[in-house]
Amino acid sequence: MTLRIAIDTLGADAGAAVLIDGALDAVAARPDIALNLVGEPESIRRLLSGRSDDHNRHTVTPSPRPLDLTDSLRLTLRGALASSMRSAIESVADGSCDALVSAGSTGALMALSRHLVGRAQGVDRPAIAKRLPTASGRPVWLLDLGANLKAGPEQLHQFAHMGTALAESVTGIATPRVALLNIGSEFHKGPANVRTAAQLLAEDNAIRHVGYVEAHDLFAGSADVIVAEGFAGNVALKASEGAAQMAAHVLREELRRLAPLETAASQEPAERVSAGLRRVFNAYNPQLYNGASLVGLSRVIVKSHGGADREGFAQAVRTAIEEVEMNVPERIAGCLAGRLA
Amino acid sequence: MTLRIAIDTLGADAGAAVLIDGALDAVAARPDIALNLVGEPESIRRLLSGRSDDHNRHTVTPSPRPLDLTDSLRLTLRGALASSMRSAIESVADGSCDALVSAGSTGALMALSRHLVGRAQGVDRPAIAKRLPTASGRPVWLLDLGANLKAGPEQLHQFAHMGTALAESVTGIATPRVALLNIGSEFHKGPANVRTAAQLLAEDNAIRHVGYVEAHDLFAGSADVIVAEGFAGNVALKASEGAAQMAAHVLREELRRLAPLETAASQEPAERVSAGLRRVFNAYNPQLYNGASLVGLSRVIVKSHGGADREGFAQAVRTAIEEVEMNVPERIAGCLAGRLA
Repeated sequence: MTLRIAIDTLGADAGAAVLIDGALDAVAARPDIALNLVGEPESIRRLLSGRSDDHNRHTVTPSPRPLDLTDSLRLTLRGALASSMRSAIESVADGSCDALVSAGSTGALMALSRHLVGRAQGVDRPAIAKRLPTASGRPVWLLDLGANLKAGPEQLHQFAHMGTALAESVTGIATPRVALLNIGSEFHKGPANVRTAAQLLAEDNAIRHVGYVEAHDLFAGSADVIVAEGFAGNVALKASEGAAQMAAHVLREELRRLAPLETAASQEPAERVSAGLRRVFNAYNPQLYNGASLVGLSRVIVKSHGGADREGFAQAVRTAIEEVEMNVPERIAGCLAGRLA
Repeated sequence: MTLRIAIDTLGADAGAAVLIDGALDAVAARPDIALNLVGEPESIRRLLSGRSDDHNRHTVTPSPRPLDLTDSLRLTLRGALASSMRSAIESVADGSCDALVSAGSTGALMALSRHLVGRAQGVDRPAIAKRLPTASGRPVWLLDLGANLKAGPEQLHQFAHMGTALAESVTGIATPRVALLNIGSEFHKGPANVRTAAQLLAEDNAIRHVGYVEAHDLFAGSADVIVAEGFAGNVALKASEGAAQMAAHVLREELRRLAPLETAASQEPAERVSAGLRRVFNAYNPQLYNGASLVGLSRVIVKSHGGADREGFAQAVRTAIEEVEMNVPERIAGCLAGRLA
């Protein structure tokens, strides 16, 4: 059975070609996966014909207008405003595609997906989740990253189930450790919604609750899932990315100071230094962790960073493929149904 | 006139000696500053007598019991439980000291300070503020870091005034740029309290409001003051510290890989590499930025990280000295009074 992924090729900073090339890279070695490339048909066909790999399995859906950030959300939801994002979501909603990847506006993507694709059974509010590297080598899932600015204890409890399903199925962890993001590690600390959620998690046998995690331990590897309301989760993720970028900036400056090394008689030490620093950059390259999952919907929807490069977008497409193959939406519905039963 | 700083010498992870030595380092070249060292008198006197610098100006207040994290806050506030923190705060409250530095519990420090020292005129809720390095070289003040988990628009507005006073007086910036922490840069984005606060700031001529800042731009240098409610501010700060620590960890691993360089015939490149990496570590050394200010109180109260080393604690003491010399509490009261007038 061919798996089909819809690609919204418009709305990224770097232009459609980067996304199309990245998506084709992601499926080049997978003849069992076909893309539905939605966007400006001429440029898509030109890029397709320029590739050496077989691309007859892919389809092109003409929808040359990117979703505009100034589009009225109400008109967009009503269908009065056409956009490549909407066309791509429709191809998932009508069952002709199994998943969608878009680099467009997160807010519009979530609103349109909820409206057209619908929520997974038992889900009150879908969330945005992302897998991040940790010092232990085992990734951590962080959610919600901004779909819900505020969340009550019951929502946080649902996010814990969604995160558990993601860590079990995508990361392959048997009983994922779930922590709540808080500003202290003691039980009595923090806002009321977080404290009440901690009680709900402690009483839920389907969740392996390991207490609170403070934001300086996001990457310590002490949890497989970290749950937060969207505002705090978004701040935690972006602050980490900002600090990592500043570290990379300082490193680049140092590399520049070290540049004269390159002209030294023995090139060997300089080469080893720059290989080492390249490994550091890679550990912090957000492109390698690109692709946030909109979870709690009845289909797989992945949001790529708007500034993704070709490799970054390919990574987001691989995330979508993994989630389809692991039946993430069904698993989440199953987790929540088991809980309600 | 001698300036007097009270030092709570108990309650730090590394023990009293590290704090006492750090505090004495901070004032070694300042004969116009005297310390009131509060804690276990024998060890304080032993450390004092071991120093070559003149220390007759310092006083010792015996109060050998550290504040215990399990102490009931109610009994602590009532004065039924003695502690070095309480004794030190009392010496500020009764006017015999101008400022206090403690590495004890933030929550207890804020509660006791509010109770015994009181708020600056016009302040509803004091906040915790910290100065952090940015890519531009100009530091940024971030507040609130957790004194108030939630904050309404009016509180955020007051924090903006406190941050403006700090940046003007301590950092010496004429009209500091003030931003609100949010999850997007567009005016209509984010939670209601942040959006309403943005309106209040835009209408206030005493504030140079520059819009929203996302957490990945905390260190970009685009603002001199960043205002958030305590939960989000705490998460932003700790997530940044955690990411920086992880970067340092990766760098250390790389340095270990590069260790054989040291044995190479030419030591010169290896030395320059490690000097460069040492600069990177220093840029991220939280000890160099130790010392969070409890602002909005009628006196200068500085909280040191519990894990501070000698240099870190000295840095916190220097922060307290700077704020006393710059009359920060009076300036904050002045800012808020000007606004109310």
